[in-house]
Amino acid sequence: ASAVLAAPALAQSNPKVNWRLASSFPKSLDTIYGGAETLSKYLSEATDGNFQIQVFAAGEIVPGLQAADAAAAGTVEACHTVGYYYWGKDPVWALGSAVPFALNARGMNAWQYHGGGIELYNEFLDTQGLVGLPAGNTGVQMGGWFRKEIKTVADLQGLKMRIGGFAGKVVERLGVVPQQIAGGDIYPALEKGTIDAAEWTTPYDDEKLGFYKVAPYYYYPGFWEGGPTVHAMFNKAAFESLPKNYQSLLRIACQATDANMLQKYDWLNPPAIKRLVAAGAKLAPFSPEILSACYDKADEVYAEMEDDNPTFKKIWDSIKAFRGEYYLNAQIAEYNYDTFMMIQQRNGKL
Amino acid sequence: ASAVLAAPALAQSNPKVNWRLASSFPKSLDTIYGGAETLSKYLSEATDGNFQIQVFAAGEIVPGLQAADAAAAGTVEACHTVGYYYWGKDPVWALGSAVPFALNARGMNAWQYHGGGIELYNEFLDTQGLVGLPAGNTGVQMGGWFRKEIKTVADLQGLKMRIGGFAGKVVERLGVVPQQIAGGDIYPALEKGTIDAAEWTTPYDDEKLGFYKVAPYYYYPGFWEGGPTVHAMFNKAAFESLPKNYQSLLRIACQATDANMLQKYDWLNPPAIKRLVAAGAKLAPFSPEILSACYDKADEVYAEMEDDNPTFKKIWDSIKAFRGEYYLNAQIAEYNYDTFMMIQQRNGKL
Repeated sequence: ASAVLAAPALAQSNPKVNWRLASSFPKSLDTIYGGAETLSKYLSEATDGNFQIQVFAAGEIVPGLQAADAAAAGTVEACHTVGYYYWGKDPVWALGSAVPFALNARGMNAWQYHGGGIELYNEFLDTQGLVGLPAGNTGVQMGGWFRKEIKTVADLQGLKMRIGGFAGKVVERLGVVPQQIAGGDIYPALEKGTIDAAEWTTPYDDEKLGFYKVAPYYYYPGFWEGGPTVHAMFNKAAFESLPKNYQSLLRIACQATDANMLQKYDWLNPPAIKRLVAAGAKLAPFSPEILSACYDKADEVYAEMEDDNPTFKKIWDSIKAFRGEYYLNAQIAEYNYDTFMMIQQRNGKL
Repeated sequence: ASAVLAAPALAQSNPKVNWRLASSFPKSLDTIYGGAETLSKYLSEATDGNFQIQVFAAGEIVPGLQAADAAAAGTVEACHTVGYYYWGKDPVWALGSAVPFALNARGMNAWQYHGGGIELYNEFLDTQGLVGLPAGNTGVQMGGWFRKEIKTVADLQGLKMRIGGFAGKVVERLGVVPQQIAGGDIYPALEKGTIDAAEWTTPYDDEKLGFYKVAPYYYYPGFWEGGPTVHAMFNKAAFESLPKNYQSLLRIACQATDANMLQKYDWLNPPAIKRLVAAGAKLAPFSPEILSACYDKADEVYAEMEDDNPTFKKIWDSIKAFRGEYYLNAQIAEYNYDTFMMIQQRNGKL
């Protein structure tokens, strides 16, 4: 920073920076892929076009699930991705994004921005050669599409489900056979019955893939993604080479982008769910039996990870300490307001 | 903008701008007053200190409830305020902030940022000589502090309550006698019994004024503030005189500030509610009878305003169209996830 201050301030303020960003998402998912475009637009507009980030969709530079690796290696300066994609390398990766039965979007944001979450996660990312900032959230995701009704834990036995990483590890303990299948291959697998179920994201995104035609039972909630954070991650050396005002602008623009993605989902999901139901999707909640069994199995997995991994324990302890308080307070004004408004909706009064 | 482009781009990017902002809030409310300080910090940091906004607390330049007037008149370039403070001039002022039984914070944000809400509200603010951007949200507020239990609509008869503007107009129709009392005068009025009840804001803010000592019944939810937006408003000529990149930066910094305030409340309210209950606050929900009666009276008020005021009708119609869809979708993944987590909390499993 002192070098910047020593030079003429006006001439130095907005130097030319051209970065490349690898997204983990295809362009067709305009909400989540669009987060990186929002960030890029914000940075460009605030600097008269001097700070440019060019966004590349999944597969254009590297495959979507290698976006963070590419940023860490310096192949690109930045990526837009979800931490849990990399949980196989170390489960700590998942804690900055979403883990089963953690916080919803508002709780996750409170913990991140004011509870030290961003700092804790970056202590870990630093060891990976990265700086990460929250830059998107989808809200609670749906539980996915099922060819048949699932009412009890017994119904999960042998169920072949496309479900990823951490969540797969939980439901596996209840007899589910987790499958790793890329987005584009899910529909034919469901249609042929190669798999029995698949989780994807939210109504607006799910609609695009047309799953309701071949697996009409649409369960909720996706208890493994209560409020998943999408991250912008930056090559550490690239981030540190930025002038201080660009580092600050990145933080501000990421916080705005983070909010903007959730705002966009919250605007687009309501009409999407209506269209899906009109097209034949059969909405159904996971039964309390299934949710409780999954919760208990998740706690088993957490206990094992805490034993194995001190960094995991440190961050998960921090989330857990807030989770109890958050869900106590949320029962009061927020829950009662929403419940009353939902009753009005059901009574046709809204 | 063309003038900016014609000059050397680097030298022009971050010109010196020094603005004054009048806050409607006292410094003691660090969450809501702090929003303007966050905005000021973001702008300064992103421009190497070239875009400065100096924040003045309520009363330092003008009284808190005249902040928007001061910005419109050019006494200051900016203010940080809540639209409903000015609803007596025209009820349209309230629609950008909060009106009874409207959207919660996420719904309000979805409508504002992606449903045309910011643009609709600014069509109105433009006629007042202002440009307004959301720059804070408190989440659902509490219903306030009552000296006695209130269980039925009959209990509202003759109740002297400190409650403002629009909400006062609603509860007045059920026999409440609304009182306008400044923040600092509420405690002695409750203590002496000059008033029977008072609404303020959220647990974290309410705790500071110590109402639990003199009016221990702490009702929820504050159905007149489901997700109130705090605005940054700018003198129109001052805003238009900014270079394009500063206008963009203001939008980005306000969106980040907007999110940040809610994040801060969500972090601070949970421990505050625990402290309040430990200190003797008696938490209680408004009864369904009271909420339903208030809802119906609010609808009467809305119908009258729609008849009287075409601009009110235009904006309220836009909110209402989304409100029904929003609260339908919110019943699905979000509500079921939160409900399950709250049951876990009550069962001591979080």
